[in-house]
Amino acid sequence: MCWRLKAILFIGDGMADRPVKELGWKTPLEVAKKPALNSIAKNGICGIMDPIAPGIPPGSDTATLALLGYDPFKVYSGRGALEAVGFGLEILPGDVAFRCNFATVGEDFVVLDRRAGRIANEDAAVLAESLQKVKLESGAVNFLFKNTVQHRAVLVLRGRGLSPNVSDSDPEKVGEKVREVKPLDGSAEARFTAEILNELMEKFHSVLKAHPVNKMRVKRGLPPANVILCRGAGTVPKVRAFPEIYGVSAACIAAVPLIRGVCKVAGMNLINVKGATGTVQTDFMAKAKSAVEALRRYDFVFLHVKATDVASHDGNAKQKIAAIEKIDEMLAFILEKVDVNATYLAVTADHTTSTSTGKHEGDPVPVAITGPYVRSDDVEKFDERSCAKGGLNRIRGVDLMPTLMGLLGKTKQFGA
Amino acid sequence: MCWRLKAILFIGDGMADRPVKELGWKTPLEVAKKPALNSIAKNGICGIMDPIAPGIPPGSDTATLALLGYDPFKVYSGRGALEAVGFGLEILPGDVAFRCNFATVGEDFVVLDRRAGRIANEDAAVLAESLQKVKLESGAVNFLFKNTVQHRAVLVLRGRGLSPNVSDSDPEKVGEKVREVKPLDGSAEARFTAEILNELMEKFHSVLKAHPVNKMRVKRGLPPANVILCRGAGTVPKVRAFPEIYGVSAACIAAVPLIRGVCKVAGMNLINVKGATGTVQTDFMAKAKSAVEALRRYDFVFLHVKATDVASHDGNAKQKIAAIEKIDEMLAFILEKVDVNATYLAVTADHTTSTSTGKHEGDPVPVAITGPYVRSDDVEKFDERSCAKGGLNRIRGVDLMPTLMGLLGKTKQFGA
Repeated sequence: MCWRLKAILFIGDGMADRPVKELGWKTPLEVAKKPALNSIAKNGICGIMDPIAPGIPPGSDTATLALLGYDPFKVYSGRGALEAVGFGLEILPGDVAFRCNFATVGEDFVVLDRRAGRIANEDAAVLAESLQKVKLESGAVNFLFKNTVQHRAVLVLRGRGLSPNVSDSDPEKVGEKVREVKPLDGSAEARFTAEILNELMEKFHSVLKAHPVNKMRVKRGLPPANVILCRGAGTVPKVRAFPEIYGVSAACIAAVPLIRGVCKVAGMNLINVKGATGTVQTDFMAKAKSAVEALRRYDFVFLHVKATDVASHDGNAKQKIAAIEKIDEMLAFILEKVDVNATYLAVTADHTTSTSTGKHEGDPVPVAITGPYVRSDDVEKFDERSCAKGGLNRIRGVDLMPTLMGLLGKTKQFGA
Repeated sequence: MCWRLKAILFIGDGMADRPVKELGWKTPLEVAKKPALNSIAKNGICGIMDPIAPGIPPGSDTATLALLGYDPFKVYSGRGALEAVGFGLEILPGDVAFRCNFATVGEDFVVLDRRAGRIANEDAAVLAESLQKVKLESGAVNFLFKNTVQHRAVLVLRGRGLSPNVSDSDPEKVGEKVREVKPLDGSAEARFTAEILNELMEKFHSVLKAHPVNKMRVKRGLPPANVILCRGAGTVPKVRAFPEIYGVSAACIAAVPLIRGVCKVAGMNLINVKGATGTVQTDFMAKAKSAVEALRRYDFVFLHVKATDVASHDGNAKQKIAAIEKIDEMLAFILEKVDVNATYLAVTADHTTSTSTGKHEGDPVPVAITGPYVRSDDVEKFDERSCAKGGLNRIRGVDLMPTLMGLLGKTKQFGA
């Protein structure tokens, strides 16, 4: 073949589901009108896929690592650092990163509001700037504190002798006390890191409770953001860059910082799309157009939509169906615009999110791959049960990328 | 059961394929007339199999190791030694073996012909005999140099302190210079091995350029075989013998030295068949007859045909179909001659070789097993897409031998 083969991998976050009672025991994928998804299934090869392993509910981070071909059991090192990278922070090997919340505590550090009334970006930015001025007693460690969206923030510790093996200060429940951070193993590094963190949490609290922004908030009847809760200590996974492994140029189109972080860590270029929000109101078509455009410059485009997962967590089957139908329009557009003789299009979900339980579940997800020389099967619909009869049978998340890159001729022969 | 259960595993090298445009997007297996293969599928249990792992193009050596039940990621140590064993050389643990070519170089060691005009066996034998007389400066290392077929040869280094981690002298391209062999790691062993090899290559060149055979060749207008190119340094894998693992006697019928080498290393007996050549002109039926005969003396017979792979590499779909049809005649003969109440017959391929790309590809291969007490399914045809619907679903190469030996009652219970 003399033309250059390319590929798009589309991920509908949490798009797979279990049968839903209110849908007559069908899944949102089974109910949605989705001619483009079905045509991909019909022309392609289908299967089901365990993003991690049967029965194990994946996180979006571990699942995305797996779908990019990395074994999450080997490389995953916590969500904090991945999300921080996704927010554009540069995390170095050895840094320990945390996900943080601006929160409201009352007397005795009992949590009253884990999101400080979903504090506005403007207030959070002023507070974060003040927190960044805090000085640590140990000269061996620096920190970086950055607000991201509303009450969310990222804390990065940088220096010698740090460990991610420390507990959370976030009790994750209203009515409980903020927790002291404790080392999770017997190492000097974990003890040191816990000390640093407790020192920071206390100093942050001192700055926040006296801060003019919070005094103003109280006057306006808003909960003061008088504490920082932290959780999910992590380091950046050490992985070989995706473009280096497969010899392809690769881009990521995703709005969710965690997904962007995983792709960035994998050495992919991040493309920003105006109107892509990671919510159900995202500009679906702007992302589709961006993907088609990116495919001119890149061999591989990773395209991610969060809306299906959001609807599932809210238990909103109708909204999930609507999101799937918008995804279908994206894929119809893509199918129309790309050269189908030289482009592989793979569609799947990073995990099952049940609209009944509102949680990630360990059920497998459907997957379909269309493109030249694919061993098409007789599956005609893209959904959980139809794809289970497909020619791919049942694969693991880590098998998807070698399968796709094998079609592109980008996997290396093992042996002679 | 009071009779002794036996099994034949038939491997069509590179027999699996992707849909081929000139065959109306069918595969050679889908197009070929193959009543025997289909009857095995119909009476047996079918599935698809990733010889190594999804998407990874297998070599014939790694795939054969896997099909014999060895994890190639753990035991594979290069092609050189396996092929040398296949040519009948005894390779000891610690020996480092190379694949070599008699080649023609011009001024400045630029390669003019990587095969020295496909030099005749007779000429190569005389040259090899002279090369064997070369003396190495170090008394710690001996070598063995043996011509095999035409321009092909094998070099084995034997002695203390050798390493297979050295680069090739073969540039694998006409017009490029012969390469200096370099250590591929920082070890003293790799450095020593590279030195030995460079010394040998130089001394070989001195012997060859002054050799009467080459002077005669030049007179006759033939390219002189004035250099030896070497590549693929390897040691012999350390594996437990197949007959010992399963408690069966085992024989291999294959013409290709690399496959014979793998089977020999696995402790199987090699059976020589007159007319078996490893080419499309091989005597298919002689091999079938030999397999039936071997089954009287052995519990397990590994039967390999190369022709399908040769046709695929040449992009010759018609020739591949013809080879499959000849294979089908072999299997019809075997089915007729063996006791089907006491014999398992498994058929598969060691990898997909695409007649479109001319390369090994990472797509799975079909597999079918027929014999007593097999859970037969409703697959009726032996091909890539039909077998994907079979009762074995999708397995890995390393799972095949335990599956087959399990049917023979030869796998050991794990636990109580």
